[in-house]
Amino acid sequence: MTIGFFTEENSVETVLGRNGPGANPRVVEVVSALVKHLHAFAKEVHLMQEEWEIGIDFLTRTGQLCGPERQEFILLSDTLGLSMLVDAINNRRPKGATENTVFGPFHVDDAPRRKMGDSINMDGKGETCLYEGRVLDLDGTPIAGAKVDVWSDSADGFYDVQQPGIQPKGNNRGVFITGDDGRYWFTGIKPTSYPIPDDGTVGKMLAQLDRHPYRPAHMHFLVAAPGYQKLVTHTFVGGDTYLESDAVFGTKASLVAPFDKVTGGATEWRSPFDFVLVKAE
Amino acid sequence: MTIGFFTEENSVETVLGRNGPGANPRVVEVVSALVKHLHAFAKEVHLMQEEWEIGIDFLTRTGQLCGPERQEFILLSDTLGLSMLVDAINNRRPKGATENTVFGPFHVDDAPRRKMGDSINMDGKGETCLYEGRVLDLDGTPIAGAKVDVWSDSADGFYDVQQPGIQPKGNNRGVFITGDDGRYWFTGIKPTSYPIPDDGTVGKMLAQLDRHPYRPAHMHFLVAAPGYQKLVTHTFVGGDTYLESDAVFGTKASLVAPFDKVTGGATEWRSPFDFVLVKAE
Repeated sequence: MTIGFFTEENSVETVLGRNGPGANPRVVEVVSALVKHLHAFAKEVHLMQEEWEIGIDFLTRTGQLCGPERQEFILLSDTLGLSMLVDAINNRRPKGATENTVFGPFHVDDAPRRKMGDSINMDGKGETCLYEGRVLDLDGTPIAGAKVDVWSDSADGFYDVQQPGIQPKGNNRGVFITGDDGRYWFTGIKPTSYPIPDDGTVGKMLAQLDRHPYRPAHMHFLVAAPGYQKLVTHTFVGGDTYLESDAVFGTKASLVAPFDKVTGGATEWRSPFDFVLVKAE
Repeated sequence: MTIGFFTEENSVETVLGRNGPGANPRVVEVVSALVKHLHAFAKEVHLMQEEWEIGIDFLTRTGQLCGPERQEFILLSDTLGLSMLVDAINNRRPKGATENTVFGPFHVDDAPRRKMGDSINMDGKGETCLYEGRVLDLDGTPIAGAKVDVWSDSADGFYDVQQPGIQPKGNNRGVFITGDDGRYWFTGIKPTSYPIPDDGTVGKMLAQLDRHPYRPAHMHFLVAAPGYQKLVTHTFVGGDTYLESDAVFGTKASLVAPFDKVTGGATEWRSPFDFVLVKAE
């Protein structure tokens, strides 16, 4: 009866000391760091009993908002910068390689396979834009057979999967395969900035922090080629109002792309961007 | 475009820098500490993308297990030692005062008011025990008119609210009011140790950590008197197997009570314990 009793001072050691010999070592490592930081957090802010109750209620409602069409805990992770941090930790790349950014919840596995040069826009809404560039390795060698999977929101700021029955399935999406020159080019629209869903617990948190829910306009790219690390990224529309205040912290300086106004061309805008992949280890 | 972009190095500053001038100051304080520790945690354990996904799924399922009869997030807080830590932070008391411990989810507001000396046991199951002692202030002066609200599990290890229709409503519960001598006494049963619900996400976590889900046997006491701080506590059955390994870390040395075997008395056991309250500020 002299050991093991919990006090404010020994709280972390007491909890960590409880794990048994059959514990999963990585779970122990992760949960131990979690307990250490969770307790330090509560001590640091002198968490009040009523605040703890608000926290329990917040987490419960966040979980209960999740369903097939919505993942409020991912949104929470995104808006606290955790998603981008995990992305950064897991995708440290050499200088010159294209940087990753958040995957987001709107990718689909069965996007339409299109012929190089085709348009991905199916509803005719929005200002047309020619996207073009090359997929290269770190030496500047073109990568043939790279899969370039692209998706953006519509002129109204919604992805097709958010508006089934309103937008045609596959609108503003497409999968392209590079040829020997590593080039890609297709017509899409100049994307629009949009708010993340802010009618749930995350929206309430943002309001309490006086933060807006907008993401700067961006085109999603998933670029994959055999022998190379998968690249999950966006290109951002240079000059967008929300570029420096992306609600999910996804913007990176190197991913801000030119969107040049075209006069007398087949499209209204042109956005050139090269993707540089790193060899898989 | 030179400021505000998120990197692994500046992740905390970038997120905290986003709060607006209209933010709620206490929310900013709490969320800032949370972000700082959450990011430090992810960096420290080099959180893998797949582990982040497991975490999102764990939190989502935890939220979805919650309902009128179950609060899995409180259980998570309890088993990570957070509930006891918040209790400790919010109830620092002078030497000599009775210590708090976790409230638990099984208190009811409408427990039967009983006459001093009555039995709280209504199903006739279990070994009878006389609980007795005094409610005192720090100077040893008896407190008259103190409400002593008590509850325990049954001989089978369940509270009445967990078994509606099986146990009589109010079984092993009662509210008593002290007279001028500050004394309380009533008959209950010697409580039994029991597992917290372990068929959900928290149970899975405990299994991965090789931790058992048991709580040592205890009698709950909520002692309140006008002009004094509310005392939320248990007395623990001395000698219980799980005393030093309470799944929710509720045991404190000062709360382990004698349970003496009685020969030839009206009850089989006797557990004396005095409660010492602190004046409200």
